[in-house]
Amino acid sequence: MEEAPLFNYKLTLEYDGSKFYGWQVQPGLRTIQGEVENALQVLFRQPLRVNVAGRTDTGVHAIGQVLNFRTTLASPVPDLPRAMNGILAHDVVVKRLEMMPSDFHARHDAKSRQYFYMLSKFPVAIGRHYAFFWKYPLEVAAMREASQYLIGEHDFRAFCDTNTEDPHYLSLMELIEWEESDERIKLTIRANRFLRSMVRIIVGTMIDVGRGQLAPPQVKEILESRKRTAASFTAPPHGLFLEKVFY
Amino acid sequence: MEEAPLFNYKLTLEYDGSKFYGWQVQPGLRTIQGEVENALQVLFRQPLRVNVAGRTDTGVHAIGQVLNFRTTLASPVPDLPRAMNGILAHDVVVKRLEMMPSDFHARHDAKSRQYFYMLSKFPVAIGRHYAFFWKYPLEVAAMREASQYLIGEHDFRAFCDTNTEDPHYLSLMELIEWEESDERIKLTIRANRFLRSMVRIIVGTMIDVGRGQLAPPQVKEILESRKRTAASFTAPPHGLFLEKVFY
Repeated sequence: MEEAPLFNYKLTLEYDGSKFYGWQVQPGLRTIQGEVENALQVLFRQPLRVNVAGRTDTGVHAIGQVLNFRTTLASPVPDLPRAMNGILAHDVVVKRLEMMPSDFHARHDAKSRQYFYMLSKFPVAIGRHYAFFWKYPLEVAAMREASQYLIGEHDFRAFCDTNTEDPHYLSLMELIEWEESDERIKLTIRANRFLRSMVRIIVGTMIDVGRGQLAPPQVKEILESRKRTAASFTAPPHGLFLEKVFY
Repeated sequence: MEEAPLFNYKLTLEYDGSKFYGWQVQPGLRTIQGEVENALQVLFRQPLRVNVAGRTDTGVHAIGQVLNFRTTLASPVPDLPRAMNGILAHDVVVKRLEMMPSDFHARHDAKSRQYFYMLSKFPVAIGRHYAFFWKYPLEVAAMREASQYLIGEHDFRAFCDTNTEDPHYLSLMELIEWEESDERIKLTIRANRFLRSMVRIIVGTMIDVGRGQLAPPQVKEILESRKRTAASFTAPPHGLFLEKVFY
């Protein structure tokens, strides 16, 4: 008996998280996964489950989110991204389709994820949903210095939401970079995996460094404490973007 | 009898026009002028009328809108922009206050206004309220060539909404510049005055040039026809920004 061919679809998505209750399907709530799987079901006429590279929380945006799904059906339309964009609301856009070998998995095969977090030094009307306005001065040099303590493989339990279900807390931090302009401060951060709220707790902690509440070496102590209560506040979600997934 | 001193306040504003019915006060509708004058009345405890450099239509944004108002009252608060921002909704922000000589008038004294218009080559979720997605290819070189016919002083009646109340249609066009990146096409345009919907009709006409519906020299004929029906469609407001007012 011949096996049916298996098509493995990889999609790259952009979305504005402002009006979503995060990525993951939840009954009665508008989620990105829910909207995407609904569009797929309309087109493929079968329920499909997608694997995502990085689940994002309520209010978090993505520029290069990646997902895959497998089915024995070829695409029912010549241009799947365009057909999906015709069904999806305007705050989620399918940017790219790639056909993959059947063993590709968007989450398991991802080598690292890159996020950025945008701080605005001034209140802004244009793009206010895409940056966190921090009204006090920040010393970026101190934030850079403190960030170096997080590079490499560490147990990041101190920078993880307490209600996480993660089986372990290890993460290999590859890049933490701060860029400052007259109006903005941007963090770019890349690691093999991120724990729940990890970027936002790092941002909150670095803000406390930048305003002089914490000295840079204290970040090392916070990391080693493995206690969430040692780190600072969780920065709000609307400044955070999943930028890119590396395979 | 001594005259009361007259304070002349100049404010620079940024706003996201998405949820406003344009600049000008209209009974029962949310307008930028209405919100700003309301905030001033709360603080100064007297009704104040503001003069604006460039009225913007429904859905049009501003990064550097300028207004002035005069009163015999000194500011009742130490930081007027911050106090106003505390009263205003988040889609309008007072960026700067300057105290001016009593004869300064935001509209009459403006030498020129600069707008930009943002086209997106791809559908975007992030910032979809700040760019007009045009899905077909555009030949920017042709748009540049056609734009040159508009430079200088002309009667721009062909590029003006028919229901305008403008007393005359002359405008001195100082700058029309097109920039193209992989994802976007940006028009920067500066003139001493703009007629109603003028930038958006110019953009619509240039899109027709860019897609090959019009040859560049036809823009000269359209201009000289002085007929709105000769020009193309009015591009939508959400790609348009009042960038700067020159004094």
